[in-house]
Amino acid sequence: MTDLRGQALAALATQTIELPSWAFGNAGTRFKVFSSPGVPRDPFEKISDAAVVHRFTGAAPRVSLHVPWDLVDDFGKLAQHAADEGVSIGAINSNLFQDDDYKFGSLTNADPAVRAKAVAHHVQCIDVMRATGSTDLKIWLPDGTNYPGQDDIRDRQERLAESLQQVYAELDPGHRLILEYKFYEPYFYTMDIPDWGTSLLHCLALGEQAMVVLDTGHHAPNTNIEFIVAQLLRIGRLGAFDFNSRFYGDDDLIVGAADPFQLFRIMNEIVRADALRPESGVNFMLDQCHNIEPKIPGQIRSVMNVQEATAKALLVDRDALRTAQRSGDVLGANAALMDAYNTDVRPLLAELRESQGLPADPYRAYAASGHAEQIATERIGGQQAGWGA
Amino acid sequence: MTDLRGQALAALATQTIELPSWAFGNAGTRFKVFSSPGVPRDPFEKISDAAVVHRFTGAAPRVSLHVPWDLVDDFGKLAQHAADEGVSIGAINSNLFQDDDYKFGSLTNADPAVRAKAVAHHVQCIDVMRATGSTDLKIWLPDGTNYPGQDDIRDRQERLAESLQQVYAELDPGHRLILEYKFYEPYFYTMDIPDWGTSLLHCLALGEQAMVVLDTGHHAPNTNIEFIVAQLLRIGRLGAFDFNSRFYGDDDLIVGAADPFQLFRIMNEIVRADALRPESGVNFMLDQCHNIEPKIPGQIRSVMNVQEATAKALLVDRDALRTAQRSGDVLGANAALMDAYNTDVRPLLAELRESQGLPADPYRAYAASGHAEQIATERIGGQQAGWGA
Amino acid sequence: MTDLRGQALAALATQTIELPSWAFGNAGTRFKVFSSPGVPRDPFEKISDAAVVHRFTGAAPRVSLHVPWDLVDDFGKLAQHAADEGVSIGAINSNLFQDDDYKFGSLTNADPAVRAKAVAHHVQCIDVMRATGSTDLKIWLPDGTNYPGQDDIRDRQERLAESLQQVYAELDPGHRLILEYKFYEPYFYTMDIPDWGTSLLHCLALGEQAMVVLDTGHHAPNTNIEFIVAQLLRIGRLGAFDFNSRFYGDDDLIVGAADPFQLFRIMNEIVRADALRPESGVNFMLDQCHNIEPKIPGQIRSVMNVQEATAKALLVDRDALRTAQRSGDVLGANAALMDAYNTDVRPLLAELRESQGLPADPYRAYAASGHAEQIATERIGGQQAGWGA
Amino acid sequence: MTDLRGQALAALATQTIELPSWAFGNAGTRFKVFSSPGVPRDPFEKISDAAVVHRFTGAAPRVSLHVPWDLVDDFGKLAQHAADEGVSIGAINSNLFQDDDYKFGSLTNADPAVRAKAVAHHVQCIDVMRATGSTDLKIWLPDGTNYPGQDDIRDRQERLAESLQQVYAELDPGHRLILEYKFYEPYFYTMDIPDWGTSLLHCLALGEQAMVVLDTGHHAPNTNIEFIVAQLLRIGRLGAFDFNSRFYGDDDLIVGAADPFQLFRIMNEIVRADALRPESGVNFMLDQCHNIEPKIPGQIRSVMNVQEATAKALLVDRDALRTAQRSGDVLGANAALMDAYNTDVRPLLAELRESQGLPADPYRAYAASGHAEQIATERIGGQQAGWGA
Repeated sequence: MTDLRGQALAALATQTIELPSWAFGNAGTRFKVFSSPGVPRDPFEKISDAAVVHRFTGAAPRVSLHVPWDLVDDFGKLAQHAADEGVSIGAINSNLFQDDDYKFGSLTNADPAVRAKAVAHHVQCIDVMRATGSTDLKIWLPDGTNYPGQDDIRDRQERLAESLQQVYAELDPGHRLILEYKFYEPYFYTMDIPDWGTSLLHCLALGEQAMVVLDTGHHAPNTNIEFIVAQLLRIGRLGAFDFNSRFYGDDDLIVGAADPFQLFRIMNEIVRADALRPESGVNFMLDQCHNIEPKIPGQIRSVMNVQEATAKALLVDRDALRTAQRSGDVLGANAALMDAYNTDVRPLLAELRESQGLPADPYRAYAASGHAEQIATERIGGQQAGWGA
Repeated sequence: MTDLRGQALAALATQTIELPSWAFGNAGTRFKVFSSPGVPRDPFEKISDAAVVHRFTGAAPRVSLHVPWDLVDDFGKLAQHAADEGVSIGAINSNLFQDDDYKFGSLTNADPAVRAKAVAHHVQCIDVMRATGSTDLKIWLPDGTNYPGQDDIRDRQERLAESLQQVYAELDPGHRLILEYKFYEPYFYTMDIPDWGTSLLHCLALGEQAMVVLDTGHHAPNTNIEFIVAQLLRIGRLGAFDFNSRFYGDDDLIVGAADPFQLFRIMNEIVRADALRPESGVNFMLDQCHNIEPKIPGQIRSVMNVQEATAKALLVDRDALRTAQRSGDVLGANAALMDAYNTDVRPLLAELRESQGLPADPYRAYAASGHAEQIATERIGGQQAGWGA
Repeated sequence: MTDLRGQALAALATQTIELPSWAFGNAGTRFKVFSSPGVPRDPFEKISDAAVVHRFTGAAPRVSLHVPWDLVDDFGKLAQHAADEGVSIGAINSNLFQDDDYKFGSLTNADPAVRAKAVAHHVQCIDVMRATGSTDLKIWLPDGTNYPGQDDIRDRQERLAESLQQVYAELDPGHRLILEYKFYEPYFYTMDIPDWGTSLLHCLALGEQAMVVLDTGHHAPNTNIEFIVAQLLRIGRLGAFDFNSRFYGDDDLIVGAADPFQLFRIMNEIVRADALRPESGVNFMLDQCHNIEPKIPGQIRSVMNVQEATAKALLVDRDALRTAQRSGDVLGANAALMDAYNTDVRPLLAELRESQGLPADPYRAYAASGHAEQIATERIGGQQAGWGA
Repeated sequence: MTDLRGQALAALATQTIELPSWAFGNAGTRFKVFSSPGVPRDPFEKISDAAVVHRFTGAAPRVSLHVPWDLVDDFGKLAQHAADEGVSIGAINSNLFQDDDYKFGSLTNADPAVRAKAVAHHVQCIDVMRATGSTDLKIWLPDGTNYPGQDDIRDRQERLAESLQQVYAELDPGHRLILEYKFYEPYFYTMDIPDWGTSLLHCLALGEQAMVVLDTGHHAPNTNIEFIVAQLLRIGRLGAFDFNSRFYGDDDLIVGAADPFQLFRIMNEIVRADALRPESGVNFMLDQCHNIEPKIPGQIRSVMNVQEATAKALLVDRDALRTAQRSGDVLGANAALMDAYNTDVRPLLAELRESQGLPADPYRAYAASGHAEQIATERIGGQQAGWGA
């Protein structure tokens, strides 16, 4: 066990989790968006907040940007601001859902002019990548239909394939196009990329720089997500995670909040495939918003939840597990997994953090820091950021 | 069959479906609300639009109001406007989800002052009922929590029971309190009235004037809704329907759009229990919005879908059905039901409408009427109605 | 924390979990029943196996029987055998699904003769209760239909109500009728008691001796089970649990295997309502079978899983939780719950067991005991027990 | 419309639906298998029953066989029997779920000897194909695990890929390997081919003779099945359907019984892709059993349901649909689809059948034929066929 513990500490020291800029703005449901004191008014303040999460956790050194919400005149200046705060710019996320033109689709729209507009938007995003040093273009396609017959399912796939080719052609060699799937919402009958199979088919058609993004909240009920993780790793096409959680609907709860055992099982497949290493090409990102809880602590808790699930996965005694599996010892193999899951890894993570000069409990340290009160006092006036800015 | 047809015509002639005022305003998802030309700017225009649906279908003589979205200075004037347009005011819907105070609950809030505010809001709604002649106070409780531990499940039930008692005490003798349940949204871990059992328990505690509202889109996947209809009818507590449909998430698609067979099975239980008669106490209401389709035609189509499902249910040969059921003839009993479902009832409904001086196909007649173009031209300026006005 | 720990130890020392006799027989799916060496050949051997589980865990002093699978000539002798082995007879379970007469229903059958037979079967079960000292008659009603129209939903409810009245009338004063609900299976369109609301309505109609059984595997996907627990406790009608777990289908996996966090949340509601006490009237039973894993270790693991979830629930700092809840501290309240969940309670339970003269780890102790090998050697010949014997 | 009607008649005249031999044997749930009078005792009688369905419907000229349930000494004789009865042998189905060796997997088993046995079983099936003239080897892989950790997800994929390669290598040039996926059951944590993506990946690795089988009952709740149909058609890998239906669990209800609108939407994608033509390579098969309803009438009803859904799909006015889709007319496009769905196609099918010298209503004609009574009288003695023979 000593050895496992040491290996776990080493692996955890290298783990990084990317934060979404939009997690720091206001968010909500179709019924209500609640606002909170201290919410950022611009991309610079969002990055500052993300940097606070990194300062307390030591594990969140990158920030995903969203275009156009995070558009600034000078992206060089934004990247420098990030560097000054100790973080860097991560994936660039395009927005295909807030324009009136996209009512019936963006990259899939029957109107070539709308498709061209959606492609051009990605060219703009790639420019932001070049200006900020980002390497990942993340596409979540919100296209779909609400009624049977509304549009032709197959035509939409063909248009999508063509639009994606045009975007892909714009990438630089070091760039990746990472393509997300989602089971439902904001359309309710079809989604044009509803499952991992569809995302993968498009990635295979595009080429080596295209990878699948798995958002933990984007599956049908009771889908075995760790199976998909294992499958995508097996064929070398798991590009990134969007971590969050969900009981039934919505997908913006704190990762691990709804089913911590599932998160552990997912991280177990990552560790089993040796894909935790930064060079494995899997980008571990959060994609969640905070409707009713404070944002910075919400992100800190999320980072900690991923770390705890990872720590448990690292503590699985793989020799014991393998032995039990090979001998058909169902309960013994399950027990080998559960022994790790049932371990309280908070002391291990506290040890790691203290060795890094970080607070043992980032959540409590932040609460005691006075930072929340400070930004609530300072950030008066202006327009709080939200979905739309 | 002649007899069944005649009875069906007679029953269909008395069927009424209540329209929600908010169906005529803009609506959308948390991602985007699309606006449309011609959308009403105030409650008077909403009622006018509802009256158009009634003029074309002859089956939609009432309009549900929403407080505060439909607040006007003079409700007597609004009721008179409705009467002038040929419709009347139906259920009054309270709003417990758009106030910052309700972030952690309304009727269930731990803070007595917030609960008192929510109760007072219902007193206001009851005043609107008196001013408009409405008899139904409809409560959809959007309260709930997002995270395990966030609040105490049982305390919230006790507070809810107490708040409902206070509201109930304000009702006049001819009034009803109709109480809706919803599986999820806008909260994602618990909803305080998530299922028919919880709604019923509160109604039983309140008294005879409290009834359950069944919203067809508010159940876990694969729930047998017609079973619940039959059960609530059996114990005399089905107060109303909120009709709409849903594939997986959201609950605002046109009723019958996702699963017309389910709608038929629901109406079959209504007919079987002889609960179609207006005096049965079941109020058949639509509760849906139109995100991407035009609103008046959307409502016309919805009314037609309910009529078609009802017509099919009325055509079930109940003697043949009963005989097959009693003899254990599984396929024969199923066939008796399916014979009615597979019947094309559009000619029957055309006959009914023409006998009433209505267009045989209200949807096409409306499209040809020029009304949509007219309101698009006339309703320029002002603020289009939506969720919030 | 010291205090919580001490209270937890005291509460855990009184917790008992009832085992099902059928868990020790062979079980499987409709596709295949695998047999295992050492499986009991008769009710006496099943009770002996259950007693082994109790000897290793100290927490499983009762065995549920199933009629007719556990029919013996002399139930007094069986009860004495149990007593000799250190256990007692728990709930008596009726069987309404294995007789050809029940193809279209048992207590709900359209044929009065079949209903009378099903009622008479329960009279027989009550006789077994008298002969064995059991106080709980457990009814799981497998009745339902496969096709729309197959039978009349409401007629079946009326027949069920009448049949249950007849059974209830046979109970002795100290007896309880505990009534289970199930979402689906073995019928696939309707189940006659599909949800807690239906079970509760029948219990309310029957009287004070009728209580609801909540089987953790019998709900629609994503149903919030702990909410139902809290609601049934609130109205004093939670009679018993059938513990097991389920990912999507079937409901026979080891309790806590699919979602240990859910099991913790359920036990948290139990502890919160002070319903762990034996005198609370909630009978904690396992109802699961072991398709591919060995049976005695499977039951030991199940008991341990319930104990661990209970221990965690007992460690919740309810003052901290309440304070955070009252102040709207969403993350703080969630953290208070998660702090307990994330605690490794195995040392606490080891301490408890050792103080009781039990092995610290019953699962490993059993594996090392040689008992499995012994019964595999001894139980040669005869017919292994399964569903049907 | 005349033209559409004529085209529909022509297309319907060429449509064929393959019947499963096992539909004529007894089947049930894990709780109970009910037996029926007149059930076949051997493969010859099963084929005779299938031929009866064909004689009454004219649309079911092939019978799928199951190995080993349909093993006979002389397959040439069985094929001749089929020919004499007017039908032919369709797909050969392997069985990987009824052998004790397969408890922990067949083609995925960790033990090479078990995998070799499972591969050898397919070689035997391919021999049956040669002996009967069958061209499709259908593999439903029931492998999976019940508990997290029980076996290594990825290792199982690798073993599966290798085993499938060995089977594929045995195919003759005109043969196809058609590979089914299933969401859950008979294992409940992982299934080794749980979704279309996994099946497709293995088919792509195997080669051009490997195709995906879509079983309509094998998806997570609310999965959009017609999307998958469209996607598989788009990439040329939809090899066959297994038709049946399901409300929540099990997957053996009569096709179209649970959601006839879904069946229509599926057939609409088939017609839209011009894949109804026999030469399209899509084999339309039933895969269902009849637990409580009589088998021959159950199969007749199933064939009729597929025909009706197909007829409706053929009546979609595709020009009107396309026009509405292209102009963003959501309700108009939906209406174009629904107009076809709402049409009563029973007269059209009656006309077709009568033009073919068949009864207008095969279900009623069979009921009146006396055949059911005849086989009930004749088939006395022997062992009724079921799962296992």
